[in-house]
Amino acid sequence: MKALVFHGPGKKSWDDVPDPKILQPTDVIVKMDATTICGTDLHILKGDVPAVEKGRILGHEGVGTITEIGPAVTTLAVGDQVILSCISACGKCDFCKQGVHSHCLGDEGASGIGWIFGHLIDGTQAELVRVPYAETSVYKLPSGVTPEQGVVLSDILPTGHEIGIRYGNVKPGDVVAVVGAGPVGLATIATSGLYGPSRVIAIDIDPNRIEQAKSFGATDGVVSSDADWKDQVLAMTDGLGVDVAIEAVGIPQTFQMCLDVVRPAGHVANVGVHGAPVEFALQDLWISNINVSMGLVNTDTLGVLLKLVAQRRIDPDLFISHRFALGDIMEAYDVFGRAAETKALKVVLQA
Amino acid sequence: MKALVFHGPGKKSWDDVPDPKILQPTDVIVKMDATTICGTDLHILKGDVPAVEKGRILGHEGVGTITEIGPAVTTLAVGDQVILSCISACGKCDFCKQGVHSHCLGDEGASGIGWIFGHLIDGTQAELVRVPYAETSVYKLPSGVTPEQGVVLSDILPTGHEIGIRYGNVKPGDVVAVVGAGPVGLATIATSGLYGPSRVIAIDIDPNRIEQAKSFGATDGVVSSDADWKDQVLAMTDGLGVDVAIEAVGIPQTFQMCLDVVRPAGHVANVGVHGAPVEFALQDLWISNINVSMGLVNTDTLGVLLKLVAQRRIDPDLFISHRFALGDIMEAYDVFGRAAETKALKVVLQA
Repeated sequence: MKALVFHGPGKKSWDDVPDPKILQPTDVIVKMDATTICGTDLHILKGDVPAVEKGRILGHEGVGTITEIGPAVTTLAVGDQVILSCISACGKCDFCKQGVHSHCLGDEGASGIGWIFGHLIDGTQAELVRVPYAETSVYKLPSGVTPEQGVVLSDILPTGHEIGIRYGNVKPGDVVAVVGAGPVGLATIATSGLYGPSRVIAIDIDPNRIEQAKSFGATDGVVSSDADWKDQVLAMTDGLGVDVAIEAVGIPQTFQMCLDVVRPAGHVANVGVHGAPVEFALQDLWISNINVSMGLVNTDTLGVLLKLVAQRRIDPDLFISHRFALGDIMEAYDVFGRAAETKALKVVLQA
Repeated sequence: MKALVFHGPGKKSWDDVPDPKILQPTDVIVKMDATTICGTDLHILKGDVPAVEKGRILGHEGVGTITEIGPAVTTLAVGDQVILSCISACGKCDFCKQGVHSHCLGDEGASGIGWIFGHLIDGTQAELVRVPYAETSVYKLPSGVTPEQGVVLSDILPTGHEIGIRYGNVKPGDVVAVVGAGPVGLATIATSGLYGPSRVIAIDIDPNRIEQAKSFGATDGVVSSDADWKDQVLAMTDGLGVDVAIEAVGIPQTFQMCLDVVRPAGHVANVGVHGAPVEFALQDLWISNINVSMGLVNTDTLGVLLKLVAQRRIDPDLFISHRFALGDIMEAYDVFGRAAETKALKVVLQA
């Protein structure tokens, strides 16, 4: 088969590789119908994720059709079209039982982390994929939801929903600020409406992205390069700050921006993937009664979001900016890698 | 009257000062029956809290008997014996309506913080005290609860309960680690049992304090100067860390210790008062699904804890290590300031 193979920092190619095989009784093999590229894949290509070895097939999102099932699989069948969660979950360990699939203790991932596709095992940017723990890691695609819509449910929508909105404890009437209106920030905005906030403020350096955020549900926008950006945000509250500030960039400055605008007793929900430590001003913050959350998506709400997508309560099509044939993935990487210029959000690759 | 007056860093004295007067219709005047000294008072005397001006009467804990009431006060009467909350709450602002009295917007405290006694207005280490917002800031002492027991409810027990146990979301079966077995750490331990943890591990540099912590409800202890302290803690879990780690010291090292032992998807509850920033390793922690909370006590659970004390479910007497006459407060400060040597916890001063 063909697959997008990582050959070390800065190096990737669309290679001929052996077809995957069933290795565990709980595996299935899937023929990919649609996949996509994540910002995390770009991090891997920069060499930021040293656990990814040369020869690894990248990708952790996608929809495919089952072509083979392991002997222990009883609730899935050949021909089922399924969304692959970016998190592989054994379903049996203590963390899985609590819905914390991000820290699944299953033995596929030596590091004990549920994100293994395109990381610790071969991923989804391929014609065929071996899916471990299939019965607890895939969702059947209902009629009326397209494969490319399903791709948006593999990672990005659950990440925004779980790590931004739910960890941030968004409640009716809240004023929510989302710092960073990239794909994950937009997923946060798109799912915020489920919890009845009074205002959702998109904060980004790019005015175009802020305008785009409004089509996802943002009620207001603030350009973060404005000298008075903080005053603009506070003016959209009672002057005391936002109830929930969501970090969706992954750098110290944007984390600090969240701390700058959150009100006493508010929540800061970190969604961004960080590469550096931050200075946390606990000498001022100890008295602030704020809560700071962070984490990797569990996709325990993938099924809930799938129902909302099927009922047209959330529109995943908004996230899809570009479409390519799977064989054109090298070009898709180029477009996605120049997102500031190409305005790429999710680039969908279809078989 | 006599009162303990702050005269600038390192300077205090037991002075003759004018009696307090009713200033607002919602005030009462209280004749103190019992008060105490808090670690925060020592911080003020070191000059760590610049908002405290020279001439300020210190202290924010105590029980007293009402001698005078303002014209708007209807639910309290002269002769009522009441516990003074360390937090003065107007009861009318948005924060008070949400139970976040620590950030009360009442106009007594210019900084908008509910802790004003011995900080922004004169405090409780005095023969008489003006109590603002009295009807929403005091609790009548029920029969069977002594004034010195009531003193423990002004700050320390609610702080441990609200900022340690409740913010830390302690649940049945949890393994809880409390870093720092001083008075507030012990208050955390003493209230942890209300939530059914399976183990409560007291971590301190002083083995004597760890032994003492066991009488408050700790099931285990670890001496933090042991080279393998972390391994000892992990061995008391399933190897993955504690569910809740509570910081009750207030220095970067102890905050980091909490991060070192918390399990994925666990909680770090900061209770300590910090004077320096901490480095927060977000490059490792973003994926950890932990939650970090912090804050000033609201005393919104003071009434609940008072019921538990009245029913002998929590024993405040355990906290009282020394007793003095109010006029001997200078000696009491000396004993409390040398707590490592004198083993002082709460020193109660009685009129």
